[in-house]
Amino acid sequence: MASRTPSPTADRAERTAAPDRGAAGERPRRRLSVDERREQLIAVALELFSRRPPEEVSIDDIAAAAGASRPLVYHYFPGKQALYEASLRRAGRELSARFEEPMEGPLSERLYRVMGRYLDFVQSHGPGFAALLRGGSVAASAGTSAVIDEVRRAAHDQILSHLAIPAPSPGLRLTVRAWIANAKITSLEWLAERSVPLEELQLHLVQEFVASLTLTAAREPALAAELASFFADERPDGPTGRLVQDLAGLFAVPGILDAVTALAAGPQTVGPQTVGPVDEASAQATEGTAGAPAE
Amino acid sequence: MASRTPSPTADRAERTAAPDRGAAGERPRRRLSVDERREQLIAVALELFSRRPPEEVSIDDIAAAAGASRPLVYHYFPGKQALYEASLRRAGRELSARFEEPMEGPLSERLYRVMGRYLDFVQSHGPGFAALLRGGSVAASAGTSAVIDEVRRAAHDQILSHLAIPAPSPGLRLTVRAWIANAKITSLEWLAERSVPLEELQLHLVQEFVASLTLTAAREPALAAELASFFADERPDGPTGRLVQDLAGLFAVPGILDAVTALAAGPQTVGPQTVGPVDEASAQATEGTAGAPAE
Repeated sequence: MASRTPSPTADRAERTAAPDRGAAGERPRRRLSVDERREQLIAVALELFSRRPPEEVSIDDIAAAAGASRPLVYHYFPGKQALYEASLRRAGRELSARFEEPMEGPLSERLYRVMGRYLDFVQSHGPGFAALLRGGSVAASAGTSAVIDEVRRAAHDQILSHLAIPAPSPGLRLTVRAWIANAKITSLEWLAERSVPLEELQLHLVQEFVASLTLTAAREPALAAELASFFADERPDGPTGRLVQDLAGLFAVPGILDAVTALAAGPQTVGPQTVGPVDEASAQATEGTAGAPAE
Repeated sequence: MASRTPSPTADRAERTAAPDRGAAGERPRRRLSVDERREQLIAVALELFSRRPPEEVSIDDIAAAAGASRPLVYHYFPGKQALYEASLRRAGRELSARFEEPMEGPLSERLYRVMGRYLDFVQSHGPGFAALLRGGSVAASAGTSAVIDEVRRAAHDQILSHLAIPAPSPGLRLTVRAWIANAKITSLEWLAERSVPLEELQLHLVQEFVASLTLTAAREPALAAELASFFADERPDGPTGRLVQDLAGLFAVPGILDAVTALAAGPQTVGPQTVGPVDEASAQATEGTAGAPAE
């Protein structure tokens, strides 16, 4: 159906609706091929769907913005949902392309550049897709979920390939996925409130990745060597260097270093206490259905 | 509509469909009041919707499990979606109740107990609601979004009240929201793969909160005093103490301490380089539409 050649009627309507389009009208308008027209409609739809939620964009809006008639749009797409999904697929491909980064230089700087491109994308396409990405959009479907999953997988695979760890553990994979979710949600929250400058967010997200990676290595001794070479490659003026300096500044604050040093010394084995609070609460939580609040 | 008194017909159908329910039949069955019946249907629906996605649960399944007739169920609820939303609302209330925790003891231990109850809930109710929480469920609606938002807000408010910081900054609020999103996504990922023990996840999520809080304080000097008193209250055998000990162990690994110490020393101001990689990439990212990949 979508591959039928546009009918003369639809094409006439198209020309009538768009008398002033084209590059300043300096040459006669070339008629778009079927593929070109399809791509143009997707591009126009993406532009509109990026700025407004799908329920606020009509086929008429898309037709008007594309200089096409309503029948012509229906000629290519069975309805708004199909056009929405096609534009989301294109957005997904564009976004995934932004994750590609040469395997050169300190890891946190690579991620920082990727996050710059990602946040730029969020800023320009996010407003319309935010509801979908947050969950609960009327336009959510198996098709939209598949696109979102694919972008998530692209991000995950890029990060793991840059980490260059031969057999990533389940814990490390979970860390990467959790950070991707964190980046997504944080950027959507930012979009709604813009409560901090975008460049701060860019730096924070990268530093949170570094912190998560460090925490994962603290739990998994097998990752310690990888972490050592990660830190060795970092530069003092990169995101990791800045993070380390900020933390060093923080630990210079009266009280913090003392408290942390006391914690690092570990439990003192004096007195009758043999079960730590963690074991105690853990036992309570894993008693199955007995995990409800005690009050 | 839902408050109409059940008709004699519906009630007869109910009794016929459930001849053997009640406490082992040792006393005559008391007829349920309208409210009780409604609550019972919600409880039964919640049980079914917790185990299977909504598209795999029918009104007939719910009627059979409740020992009621199909017309009786329709008597109380206009359709499956209404029953789904009612059961989700109840799940939301149960979950929010699990966030309540006395304001006593080290903060990380409070959060650890809450996470035990939360993860227990995820384990028992998550399988059916996972698709909804991930986004992309056919049952997603304005009603379900409102419930999810409310649970998120309850979590957010609980955490901020335990932090007891008079006027939380936008950065701190963002940290809390991002961590809540992280906890949600991580637990859903865990549910799908169960790649690490649940108690590990419980500890990791709490430690990630501590790390995020520390990172936020490193960026916001106004939080340093709060962080000092946070660390002072923590115990060596609690989640924070264990984290500090794990990190101390990690930094004892050859190479890591040296690399981190070099980073902490900051950029050496020798040579012509005046613009660090962070400023460079940041400038690139904030040039607006020019943020696309350079290649």
